[in-house]
This record gives sequence, structure tokens and C-alpha cells, in this order.
Amino acid sequence: MTIEQPKEPVDVIFTCSGTATGKMRNDLDVQMVEPMLETFTLATDEGPFHGGDATAPPPLALFIGGLTGCIMTQLRAFARRMGVQIDDLHVDCKIVWQWSPKDRIYETAPKSFEIDITLESPDPVAKQMALIAAAKKGCFVEQTLGRANTIRHRLKTPDGFIAADGT
Amino acid sequence: MTIEQPKEPVDVIFTCSGTATGKMRNDLDVQMVEPMLETFTLATDEGPFHGGDATAPPPLALFIGGLTGCIMTQLRAFARRMGVQIDDLHVDCKIVWQWSPKDRIYETAPKSFEIDITLESPDPVAKQMALIAAAKKGCFVEQTLGRANTIRHRLKTPDGFIAADGT
Repeated sequence: MTIEQPKEPVDVIFTCSGTATGKMRNDLDVQMVEPMLETFTLATDEGPFHGGDATAPPPLALFIGGLTGCIMTQLRAFARRMGVQIDDLHVDCKIVWQWSPKDRIYETAPKSFEIDITLESPDPVAKQMALIAAAKKGCFVEQTLGRANTIRHRLKTPDGFIAADGT
Repeated sequence: MTIEQPKEPVDVIFTCSGTATGKMRNDLDVQMVEPMLETFTLATDEGPFHGGDATAPPPLALFIGGLTGCIMTQLRAFARRMGVQIDDLHVDCKIVWQWSPKDRIYETAPKSFEIDITLESPDPVAKQMALIAAAKKGCFVEQTLGRANTIRHRLKTPDGFIAADGT
């Protein structure tokens, strides 16, 4: 079964409900809510250098896996529609962040994102380049990383949830 | 064993090497390269509506899991250092994207990011708010999503890798 592409824009909604369990482990119940309901069970943990028990990958492993998987999925999904033959696909992704100590805690910032794509394809390079350009626009994660997003935080209090994003 | 916080900024580097296997499945070898080497095995797949076999979570499940796990990790790591007691921690995250058909393919864009935090803590709300503010700055994924990042793409050709980001 393959759902037909909708004619109008639709929302794609994911939720994640996380519960702290082990020292640094988080059990994560993930749902795709729209366009259809699917559920997934994930977890993160930290290695010993961050005080965890390494029972699951760290959050950044899931993050880079999500980015890499997203662009790979889009390349294959669009290859069929754009008439580009892919005999094999391999993608290498590298992300560098900076971790800066600040008093007893620290601050973080991204430094670089690099994606190397190997498409085993008999089609001309120009056609492969057009496929990559389309896949970038279709990749939810790439489109998210390419813009400055606002994340709204709320804290639960005895009086209900209150905004936790300063004033 | 816990590594001491470094006195100067350090790079945190992750790599992901993805290979397309099943219809839409991607097997992902993830490495933390710096500040120490650790390896993780992940995979993504798609459900039937995207032509996959649902043998693994979709990329967006890893993505939201990475975001949720990252902020939860930071809240717990910084709570100790900031003297905030956490008896229990629960975080609900919701991301909405828009999926817009465009000829035979489609384009995507993020619409909203919402994070609801429940800290079971005897400490005053102001102290919990300060912890959240610090955790946001220490969360690699939040800091990445908050700015417009440039992602460099290259395509492998018989003459080596060439830039695949247009001109």
C-alpha cells in the first residue's frame, strides 16, 4: 500500500514523550500523529564521561542518524519520480559542534555540517545533481536545520504550565 | 569514571555512514569521534505509506528523539551543578512540519516546536526556570535548531567528490 501524494499541503506531526529512568537514560515514546498514527520506542543514554551507563545511544547519535536517514530516504523516494537510476547509495555525514565551558556548566554551538553522497548511477552527473537539489528541499531535517527555529518551552507548576522562555 | 570539564572550548564530532539496504531501509554506523571514540548502530526505515517495510523507525522519529533526549540530558546534568533537586523528570515534545506537493515531488518546512517540561522538584519555580534557561544553552540540538545552518553537500564522481550545492 502506498498513499497517493496529497494535492494540498498537509501537516506532518511527531510527538515524543520522554521519561528519565536510569542515571542519564531517557525512555522515549515517539508517535507519528499525522498523516497517520504510528508509534516507536526509543531511548537515549550517555557514556561514562557524562555520568551515564551507555545502555542506549546518546541523543546526538539519534540526531545525526535522523539527518542522514532523512536525506537518504528523500534521494531514493525522488529518484524514481525524477527518473534517476540508483544502483547503490552510500552517504557519509559529519557534524562538528563546539562545547565551551562557562563557570560550572557549559554552552554549545554547531560549527559545521558535511554530507558526502555516493550514488552508483549510470545517469549523467547533471541529473544526479538535480536529484540532490530536490532531495534537500524534500528532506524535513535539512529544511529544519537551514533556518533559525523558535522552540517554545513550558514548565509545569502547581498552577499549570507556564512559559519558560524568558521575557 | 567521569571526565573533568575542559577549561577551553573543545570540538564534539559525530559521523554517520549510511548504506541503503531494503526498499527504504538505511543502515547507519554512527561514531562519536571527539572527545572520545564511541560507536553506535542505528537504522531507519519507512512505513508502507512511503514504500518501506517498517523494519526500523523513520528518520523523523530519531530526530525528535534526539531533541527530546538532548534537553533531558542537559536538565539532569546541570541540575546537580546548579543545585536544583529533580525527583522525577518528564518531557513532552511536539514538532509540526508542512509537506507541500510540488509537481511529482514535494517540499517541506518546519512549522512549530513545543517542549513541555515536568520537573518534580521541591525547589522554587524561579530556580527551575534558571535551570531550563541553562539547559537550552547547553543542549547541542536546541542550539543547532535555533540558527540557520549551512550544510555542505558533495557528490562522488569518477573524478572525485564535487560540490553539490549549486553555484
